[in-house]
Amino acid sequence: MANIEDTVMAYWDACESRDWARMGMLLADDMVYHLPQTRERIRGRAAFLQFNREYPGGWHLSVTRVTGAGRQAASWITVTVDGDQQPAVSFFDLDEAGRISVITEFWPEPYEPPAGREHLVERYAIGEVQPA
Amino acid sequence: MANIEDTVMAYWDACESRDWARMGMLLADDMVYHLPQTRERIRGRAAFLQFNREYPGGWHLSVTRVTGAGRQAASWITVTVDGDQQPAVSFFDLDEAGRISVITEFWPEPYEPPAGREHLVERYAIGEVQPA
Repeated sequence: MANIEDTVMAYWDACESRDWARMGMLLADDMVYHLPQTRERIRGRAAFLQFNREYPGGWHLSVTRVTGAGRQAASWITVTVDGDQQPAVSFFDLDEAGRISVITEFWPEPYEPPAGREHLVERYAIGEVQPA
Repeated sequence: MANIEDTVMAYWDACESRDWARMGMLLADDMVYHLPQTRERIRGRAAFLQFNREYPGGWHLSVTRVTGAGRQAASWITVTVDGDQQPAVSFFDLDEAGRISVITEFWPEPYEPPAGREHLVERYAIGEVQPA
């Protein structure tokens, strides 16, 4: 059974390559995809692959970080669309066979900081590279 | 040297307990705290502890998940403020001494799903418990 970090890297590589057959081989038949921010849930490999196939194009992703052990991991990816970069954070569960059974994904949006902490923080420029 | 998942659990326990002295013992002197959504950065343990001490109160947190290995980990916590729940996702780096040297934190907000995928998704109720 592959290391979970390798499985997650292979998942994102298949996604960036739009290789849905290869992505499907990494997924359990009854996998579930959660998007807590929109309270959306997709059940099953077939529906999830269709969701990915039908997703509007023009995006590219790179893996900023993967961390995990055993049957759980998290990834932080950087998605580029029309020159804009956005992070996405995903939590993965593997089943006993090493296939991905649950993905819970967050898409954090930029926002303005609340007032009152300027004496403690510095702000950096849009596009400045973050340590990963 | 403690397991990184134990270090992250101890960090969140100190945070929920407002035990800033105990939190400080887990942090490297020159630690950095990043908030990519607001492009804010806090440098140094002293400033970060002050940021936490001064943060407006009334919140509680529980750890939904911690995953990691070696010197990197990720956590997913659930923060409750005035009955509302919000997730936060944090990535941790440890230094060679096992102290937290970098925290990169995301605060994903709810949003309405884009149109066009209703045939693939179900939406669940606000407050419905998510598998962790």
